[in-house]
Amino acid sequence: MSIITISREFGSGGREVGKRLADVLGYAYYDREIEEDIAQRMNMDVGYVTHAMRGGPHSIPLHFGRTLANPYLVKQQVDILVEKQRVLKEIAAASNCVIVGRAADVILEEYHPFKIFVYADMAYKVKRCVEHAEMGENLTPRELERAIKRVDAQRAQYHRLYADTEWGRKEAYHLCVNTTGMAIKQVVPPIADYIRCWLAQQS
Amino acid sequence: MSIITISREFGSGGREVGKRLADVLGYAYYDREIEEDIAQRMNMDVGYVTHAMRGGPHSIPLHFGRTLANPYLVKQQVDILVEKQRVLKEIAAASNCVIVGRAADVILEEYHPFKIFVYADMAYKVKRCVEHAEMGENLTPRELERAIKRVDAQRAQYHRLYADTEWGRKEAYHLCVNTTGMAIKQVVPPIADYIRCWLAQQS
Repeated sequence: MSIITISREFGSGGREVGKRLADVLGYAYYDREIEEDIAQRMNMDVGYVTHAMRGGPHSIPLHFGRTLANPYLVKQQVDILVEKQRVLKEIAAASNCVIVGRAADVILEEYHPFKIFVYADMAYKVKRCVEHAEMGENLTPRELERAIKRVDAQRAQYHRLYADTEWGRKEAYHLCVNTTGMAIKQVVPPIADYIRCWLAQQS
Repeated sequence: MSIITISREFGSGGREVGKRLADVLGYAYYDREIEEDIAQRMNMDVGYVTHAMRGGPHSIPLHFGRTLANPYLVKQQVDILVEKQRVLKEIAAASNCVIVGRAADVILEEYHPFKIFVYADMAYKVKRCVEHAEMGENLTPRELERAIKRVDAQRAQYHRLYADTEWGRKEAYHLCVNTTGMAIKQVVPPIADYIRCWLAQQS
């Protein structure tokens, strides 16, 4: 199976890159579907699962010296993370796919995914968030910038749960794409060609 | 004019990427031609110019507190660096081109070049150096690794002459390409397509 993982800065258009890549390549696409799947399997609310996966690194005492009020909740969050790994590996084994985020690049290392990192200048990310009304329309650009940094810090922290490497360090990816000023729709076909090229050289 | 700059780790195949990109796009290609041009203009030996440009950051007292034995040599090296900037700007103004190294990405900032960074895993770079007999054929893999690191450290230092940014930090480039395990010939066409796409969106 061919697996493509997309890591991305918030607001950079990484998700759109992933979605369009899946379309162009005819691959399955996974993003929020992963939390939905986990929620269904664990008979939980999808919002809770999403929150637990995002908040996991903050609230789970994975490092010594951390304490937490409710051991039941900790157990549940660990269960969710374990389930996530299982779901990701099932996805990877099932068909060619594009997976956005979820530390899939690290968790699926053994499947040799093609790893992309999508990033952009802050001004572009803020503009994009405003245009796509991500994070609510009521935030000022300065608030948006803070929110973007907060989400990316969470992603970096989440990444550290699974890897020793630094999130976003180019060495860990096959291709790093700066989308500043770019129409995502236009740039996806050459990225898809690059991936086809890479895949052909792996086999 | 459309300008493409290639920054690259030693042994990553960046020069080949540049050469082939120039071919595919029908652009002029500049690499060692720059030192040759400077040498001719300044009536100097090309080897000396190359050495001065590489060694510049080490021997020129650009930071306070440095001393140097021979003020005449310092003057000459500064003259070479000034001449280099002039040559690069002339090249940029003359025709569409691909320029490898020489801090052209920073020096030609005002021309809005498309900036690529080419990198690869150390093992791949060593293998490539052996195959292409770069740096002489008598070095062991360990010596090659040391030599690669030394050249890249020089490049990083040279970059700092012109920019506050860190050499190789992905944010300063439009596209970062990891060539590990790749046949450069195969990957250049999609990179060229990506660049065409970017150029179309700038105009």
